[in-house]
Amino acid sequence: MNINDIKSPADIKHLTLAELDDLAADLRTVLVTRLAAKGGHVGPNLGFLEATVALHYVFDAPADKLVFDVSHQTYVHKMLTGRMEAFTNPGKYGSVTGYTNPVESPDYDLFSLGHTSTSVSLASGLAKARDLAGEKYNVVAVIGDGSLSGGEAFEGLDFASTLGSNFIVVVNDNQMSIAENHGSLYENLALLRRTKGAAEENYFKTLGYRYLYVDNGNDLGELIAAFRMVKDADGPVVVHLNTCKGYGLPVAEQQKERFHYSGAFNAATGAPAVTDDADDYTDIFAKHILARMKTDPKVVAITAGVPGAVGFVPARRAEAGDRFVDVGIAEEQATAMASGLAKCGFKPVVAEPATFLQRAYDQLSQDVAINGNPAAFVTFYGGVWGMNDETHLGFFDVPMISNIPGILFLAPTCRQEYLAMLDYALDRQDGPTLVRTPTGAVVEREGDFDIDYSTAGYEVVEQGAEVAIIAAGDFLPLGLEAAAAMKAKGLQPTVINPRYMSKLDEATLDTLRDYRLVITLEDNAVDGGLGQKIATYLGSARADVKCLGLPKAFPNRYKASALLEQQGLTPEAIAALA
Amino acid sequence: MNINDIKSPADIKHLTLAELDDLAADLRTVLVTRLAAKGGHVGPNLGFLEATVALHYVFDAPADKLVFDVSHQTYVHKMLTGRMEAFTNPGKYGSVTGYTNPVESPDYDLFSLGHTSTSVSLASGLAKARDLAGEKYNVVAVIGDGSLSGGEAFEGLDFASTLGSNFIVVVNDNQMSIAENHGSLYENLALLRRTKGAAEENYFKTLGYRYLYVDNGNDLGELIAAFRMVKDADGPVVVHLNTCKGYGLPVAEQQKERFHYSGAFNAATGAPAVTDDADDYTDIFAKHILARMKTDPKVVAITAGVPGAVGFVPARRAEAGDRFVDVGIAEEQATAMASGLAKCGFKPVVAEPATFLQRAYDQLSQDVAINGNPAAFVTFYGGVWGMNDETHLGFFDVPMISNIPGILFLAPTCRQEYLAMLDYALDRQDGPTLVRTPTGAVVEREGDFDIDYSTAGYEVVEQGAEVAIIAAGDFLPLGLEAAAAMKAKGLQPTVINPRYMSKLDEATLDTLRDYRLVITLEDNAVDGGLGQKIATYLGSARADVKCLGLPKAFPNRYKASALLEQQGLTPEAIAALA
Repeated sequence: MNINDIKSPADIKHLTLAELDDLAADLRTVLVTRLAAKGGHVGPNLGFLEATVALHYVFDAPADKLVFDVSHQTYVHKMLTGRMEAFTNPGKYGSVTGYTNPVESPDYDLFSLGHTSTSVSLASGLAKARDLAGEKYNVVAVIGDGSLSGGEAFEGLDFASTLGSNFIVVVNDNQMSIAENHGSLYENLALLRRTKGAAEENYFKTLGYRYLYVDNGNDLGELIAAFRMVKDADGPVVVHLNTCKGYGLPVAEQQKERFHYSGAFNAATGAPAVTDDADDYTDIFAKHILARMKTDPKVVAITAGVPGAVGFVPARRAEAGDRFVDVGIAEEQATAMASGLAKCGFKPVVAEPATFLQRAYDQLSQDVAINGNPAAFVTFYGGVWGMNDETHLGFFDVPMISNIPGILFLAPTCRQEYLAMLDYALDRQDGPTLVRTPTGAVVEREGDFDIDYSTAGYEVVEQGAEVAIIAAGDFLPLGLEAAAAMKAKGLQPTVINPRYMSKLDEATLDTLRDYRLVITLEDNAVDGGLGQKIATYLGSARADVKCLGLPKAFPNRYKASALLEQQGLTPEAIAALA
Repeated sequence: MNINDIKSPADIKHLTLAELDDLAADLRTVLVTRLAAKGGHVGPNLGFLEATVALHYVFDAPADKLVFDVSHQTYVHKMLTGRMEAFTNPGKYGSVTGYTNPVESPDYDLFSLGHTSTSVSLASGLAKARDLAGEKYNVVAVIGDGSLSGGEAFEGLDFASTLGSNFIVVVNDNQMSIAENHGSLYENLALLRRTKGAAEENYFKTLGYRYLYVDNGNDLGELIAAFRMVKDADGPVVVHLNTCKGYGLPVAEQQKERFHYSGAFNAATGAPAVTDDADDYTDIFAKHILARMKTDPKVVAITAGVPGAVGFVPARRAEAGDRFVDVGIAEEQATAMASGLAKCGFKPVVAEPATFLQRAYDQLSQDVAINGNPAAFVTFYGGVWGMNDETHLGFFDVPMISNIPGILFLAPTCRQEYLAMLDYALDRQDGPTLVRTPTGAVVEREGDFDIDYSTAGYEVVEQGAEVAIIAAGDFLPLGLEAAAAMKAKGLQPTVINPRYMSKLDEATLDTLRDYRLVITLEDNAVDGGLGQKIATYLGSARADVKCLGLPKAFPNRYKASALLEQQGLTPEAIAALA
């Protein structure tokens, strides 16, 4: 059939297996073309293509409920549920997001999600609702092997099976997380694959599930047979699919980590469409930590499943050896483990995208801060130039973490300050520190950055009068541009780098009391952030304080320049305030 | 031996088994006397008495490292590690906390902890540090069966075994959480107990552990033999102890949930030393939800392992039937499941102590708020009159949750407003709501509380001029007392109940612009809270804004009245500001 005729899953239900195979081939061609042209989650979508066709062939969405973990493998799901043109028509490529999205498809996309390990828990709520309402339909939670190491996935699996009713967990085991998997659970999955599911030791069975193994998870016949066996099951069941990440695209099959997610690329060679030799803060971070490891045996880097995103590409992991620890997708474990290491005099540095460190709030507070263990945390992709999907925003880290007692939250403004703050965070003995990695183009500044950040106050970058701009982290260049615009109007603003998001330098702030205006700029949500603390501190002063920053909202796929403009974060708009 | 002669574990190492049995009997007598006189975690400490003696008999702390999950079972550990007098001398009962505490014993208490499911992760950091340093000693993580349902425990178990080195997990299986266990994992533990550890289906083995079962976990001989078998093991091993919660105290063995934690009681009858018939907000909550369930089949109450703490005592759980869901200690699951239920038109209400909801920050943000699913969350023991151990503080909920976009955070001031806000949160269709249960004595107020909290602004409780007191939630009575003190000085303050912790009523705030002074009172940490938002909003107004509330700190076992005084939260101190 012509894939453009597929408007809903009903349109594929009459196909024969041979026709489905043809359909899968056509879908793959379209998918590869779009992935190569636009980029996206290459490996997850290609590897789950056949399984998606089989799910929609056997189950009856939207009556049956499908929940996809992370939902970065749902391009084919979107193609089969009314959004084909977003894949076949280059002019419409931008009309769908990379994740399930109820705004796009209220019937077929049940949740907006993008963090891992949530599908089983979310689906358990659907199943409970169904049971209480006395209804009958299938609830299917799809989850990848990588996501199984996350605590929420375990909590979901452990509890959902106690409902005792229809609950189908499809484990998409492609033997990879973003990078390699970590955790003993993966030995068990390997045992199950080796024994074609027959091994007695079976993680899923110990959590109350019937278990079905599909040896070729990219074979439509096997998949359809398996899903038919579990459809309308009256209890919890796991269908364990052995799939191939990147299936059908040789470069993606061969370079699984590289093609987990890729920008636009040449489908034949795998070469990136655009090569960017510009300096990058993730490289700066990883190189610096590796250099520190060479001279200091106490330095240990930890990540939770995202080594490449923090600069630890495979060669660097090999170089770091047993002092680079990927705990798998398990941010709680990463955080608590760092506390234990710091307790013993080691210098652990936990490196995570800001959006994922959200998963360890309680561990930051309890396991780390209350104990005062001097672990370092380094976040990435915080702020407006970080990831821009609503599920991956990095600008709530300041309200979340800077208000936890005992964690010093540092916001470097340039490469030099970043490196100095990293060293400070590593070597500090009296408590935990978070360093927020700058985003955007690398900024170079001259100055004295090798200072004691436990006692240093704010940095006065430019001394002026009457008007002050306190510009944190990434926003220092913006503050300096705004100052330049003010100078053009005859003003002489003071520009301050506050260095900290978690505390005030009252002595410096006191020098601003008789100013006319103080403007704070922060690359994070204003509510709960630094500016409001400064405004409160200067509440009784002559100075009016205006707090600028990012909104308390979940904008989806925003354009950074547009969001900045909307928030008044342009040099001109800031200068106009004075 | 005289137990008062025990100054460290070395003092028991020469004892024979018979002498150890005598010692255990003496320890139990002392323990029961103190528990009955002072209250505490009765069941956990009595059930783990023999295991603690055996751990210290076989292992060599502090060279060997012991980490106790929750650490509410460490009274005997404290008795054997230099703190006996805190148990034998009533005058010294107050000299130790109820949890491990490095301030008390830097050598033997490695972490301050009180939340569940953290011991394995923390211990994995110790083990990694040991391995990197090339040292040899035992790392032992103790964890209860109830704590195993928490995601962090799974993440820890899954990863720690990959270290491949000595790592001993002692599972204290007393077949109870605080209340009954929930999760299919507990079927596996039951199978293991029934088969004396021989069953092939074994959760711990699937996660890479050697496994040893101890059928009588309150028998010193069996325990010592088992610990000797695993001491100096060169890989990960689980020792699964079948223990009896409350062992040796008949009332505690018979009423396991009642005696998980108890205030002072009569050891023979179990009767509480003090009976309190005063109204209690947990009762008010549970009664109201039960009443709502009777007329509305969509109402579902959810808790994560703490039903009694939110008023759902066994009789009420029975009455609610399948519309009360205890997911076990699994706050992430509770939160995401609620999102799924709300998605289907149900009215889930998740009831949790504020300190434990910290464990679901990312789920509140991702699974709930981004999706806008109208689940209700009700927290307990928030604020200064909540729990006062540093690990159980309830006053960071406002900075943590009120800054998440899309969650309406309500702070009721009295019984009547609490009930109205609960109803609003349950019935609301357009987004999630958090209602913070008041603490302290129940407050009664007259007024119109059955209003639409999506559009209502602040409540002006007393209209005055020049000075305003914005007093949130629990602190409204304090604000009214402060107003009375101001009136005695001839002032006529305006008193406002802001109702919300998450948004501003700009129209009402605008009426205060030309006031002389605005004082905000909030029963939570000021940093990141409501007052700073108000101070920022009124930054350019004539009014000075002073923000009062709780500190950004982890005070341990504070006295509420002293903390309030220290923070200037007395009627007199507040009145003096005007």
